[in-house]
Amino acid sequence: MVPGGYIAVEDDGIIDGVYTELPEEMANEPITDYGDRLLIPAMNDMHVHAPQYRNQGLAMDLELLPWLQNYTFPEELKYADTAYAERMYSRFVRDLWRYGTMRVVAFASVHLESTKVLMRLLNKAGMGGLVGKVNMNRNCPEALQESVSDARKACDELMREFDRDDSLVRPIMTPRFIPSCTPEMLEACGEMVRKYQLPVQSHLSENHSEIELVKTLEPESKHYADAYNRYGLLGETPTIMAHCVWTDGDELQMLRERGVMVAHCPTSNLNIASGMAPIRRFLDEGIAVGLGSDMSGGHDLSIFRMMVYAVQTSKMHYQRDNSKAFLSLAEAFWIATKSAGSFFGKVGSFEPGYEFDALVIDDKELMIDDSYTLLQRLERFVYIGDDRHITARYCQGRLIPEPEIANNL
Amino acid sequence: MVPGGYIAVEDDGIIDGVYTELPEEMANEPITDYGDRLLIPAMNDMHVHAPQYRNQGLAMDLELLPWLQNYTFPEELKYADTAYAERMYSRFVRDLWRYGTMRVVAFASVHLESTKVLMRLLNKAGMGGLVGKVNMNRNCPEALQESVSDARKACDELMREFDRDDSLVRPIMTPRFIPSCTPEMLEACGEMVRKYQLPVQSHLSENHSEIELVKTLEPESKHYADAYNRYGLLGETPTIMAHCVWTDGDELQMLRERGVMVAHCPTSNLNIASGMAPIRRFLDEGIAVGLGSDMSGGHDLSIFRMMVYAVQTSKMHYQRDNSKAFLSLAEAFWIATKSAGSFFGKVGSFEPGYEFDALVIDDKELMIDDSYTLLQRLERFVYIGDDRHITARYCQGRLIPEPEIANNL
Repeated sequence: MVPGGYIAVEDDGIIDGVYTELPEEMANEPITDYGDRLLIPAMNDMHVHAPQYRNQGLAMDLELLPWLQNYTFPEELKYADTAYAERMYSRFVRDLWRYGTMRVVAFASVHLESTKVLMRLLNKAGMGGLVGKVNMNRNCPEALQESVSDARKACDELMREFDRDDSLVRPIMTPRFIPSCTPEMLEACGEMVRKYQLPVQSHLSENHSEIELVKTLEPESKHYADAYNRYGLLGETPTIMAHCVWTDGDELQMLRERGVMVAHCPTSNLNIASGMAPIRRFLDEGIAVGLGSDMSGGHDLSIFRMMVYAVQTSKMHYQRDNSKAFLSLAEAFWIATKSAGSFFGKVGSFEPGYEFDALVIDDKELMIDDSYTLLQRLERFVYIGDDRHITARYCQGRLIPEPEIANNL
Repeated sequence: MVPGGYIAVEDDGIIDGVYTELPEEMANEPITDYGDRLLIPAMNDMHVHAPQYRNQGLAMDLELLPWLQNYTFPEELKYADTAYAERMYSRFVRDLWRYGTMRVVAFASVHLESTKVLMRLLNKAGMGGLVGKVNMNRNCPEALQESVSDARKACDELMREFDRDDSLVRPIMTPRFIPSCTPEMLEACGEMVRKYQLPVQSHLSENHSEIELVKTLEPESKHYADAYNRYGLLGETPTIMAHCVWTDGDELQMLRERGVMVAHCPTSNLNIASGMAPIRRFLDEGIAVGLGSDMSGGHDLSIFRMMVYAVQTSKMHYQRDNSKAFLSLAEAFWIATKSAGSFFGKVGSFEPGYEFDALVIDDKELMIDDSYTLLQRLERFVYIGDDRHITARYCQGRLIPEPEIANNL
């Protein structure tokens, strides 16, 4: 932490350095003075379902599998309509912005055209994202199923439009999860990953019923992670797996060996009664981790709230098994920023060479007196602040204005 | 739920009835039209430490007993200064108002004059509360200890000023907890309770180390609850005990038999790594319950957030022991309103004869389309709404304006 410091950012959005005093050779460069406000790295949401936006804060009465059938799939069906998608996705992007999330690893739906809508909206906003058109062809409503050849064609088309080196928004291979993909689909996903060197996102070991279902669907796999691994979908390219609530033993070791990142979604895990993922253990065993809102399993899009829940979840593990420390706020903050950001490249820190993704926090209202330390100011903002205290947002060096909402009714 | 209905309130703030159409004989009465907004009973915070206001959202790195020594007691020492108390308490009351909490069962500090400041501020605001001058004379800094005779004198003085039948703000006997009161102090508390028929609040079975400490301090008690009971502090008068995370067996039965209410503080229990109280079990076994923010063990003053945490906590019990259902939102809402409100009399419901404590919720921003049901609108507000959506607050029939903050620096 540098009180009253300077962050020097190059024209391309890359951080040159952090200085306690302004270096002489920069004396003539333009300066934005944020006074006594806090500057912190922007948030990264490593797991979120964009088409569940309308269901945010609803339907907290079921576990995972019936919840998907009753609430999630019926809403996702609406995304066959790109006008509906634009209306909802533009609000979703605005809300990410509002809560200071500048980069996102997102599920769209199975619909190619709507997925493009989301990617274009993120691009237009100037925010970064890995966005997955979902692949699924079983155990869901027929209208949400695609053929394997359509899945391949959609992937080719997304690569043609969005696979640009200078783009902040790119595709990510997204088999929904093992239960919704036949072996043929999973094989095709693996092939596309190899062909385009695409990153991968999916769900892993969230819920007991789901894990049992995977066992019957993929009896030759050692465990759930191995089912992805057998199709080339686990660490062949950068891979992120959401939840891992019940990941243990050989599955945990495989994640470490394959360099897979876990998207820890503590709020969702409580809301859908999945359980509490062993976040401290992931850290101790050298597993890469980030935080995810998992909206709408999670009800809150704020990654700051996810930090609070991650610390709380780690405390319940600590309380049951007193041998390990719980997460500190500094650790939760690191998970949400530098650790998560590594999935996008050099993102999530103010070190030289990193992209300047930043939030300006005006916490004056939260400072009852002037004796709070810098760390206490950050802690107060994380625990009791909200979007009202975020007064500016930067992604890759650019000041990001509030994204527009589409009112195409 | 009555869509487009009318709530008729008498001049004394008592509800006459809820009508789907305006009764003819009321046609000439003054009407306040809130259009399509939601009207719900106001919130009751059944356990909160007012003098920990400055520490809200801080110091989440210790368990209960060291946390008290390192953070709580040093802050409470400042309340020997009534000017400091007024500055902090006026903000505390404003924040209760902001989050829609119209009645509170609060701990003040050991200081008589500062306690009066808090009670006068609540009175001035028009909000209701049972406020406890804390009794403590061991296991805390000497400057926070009082003599038994001073404790008696303070109680007499508070009764003289605040024991009025028409007052919304009244005293409650508040031995901090067994570890901070000698047997002589506990005996005196019991006597004052009998003398003035005062209600009682304290802490019970929050944390393992605390429970072990109580065993050594009160070896003749069957359990922690019995320690209070032996001094006439458990159900002789209306009694509320915070936490009860580890209450079980005979202790649980004693709470039921003595009609003691549990103030469930799920956020605090996670933050201080205490554990998860069996809230579903309390309901099933007929224990009275309410929700408490327990600021600053809890970081959030919103009782709506406490509902979310209560449901989540119940889901973790459900997940571990699949035999019992988790809390529904309706149950959590009932706990926070009608169940908690019963501690204040006929409060927390819109039934005839109840005091009109109400919030007006403008959830237009949260309604993405007009197909949400009334229950879904409430659910969305509870999960993702905040103080911005509360547009009017009533306590005992009176519209409560924003309380002023004291800037007496």
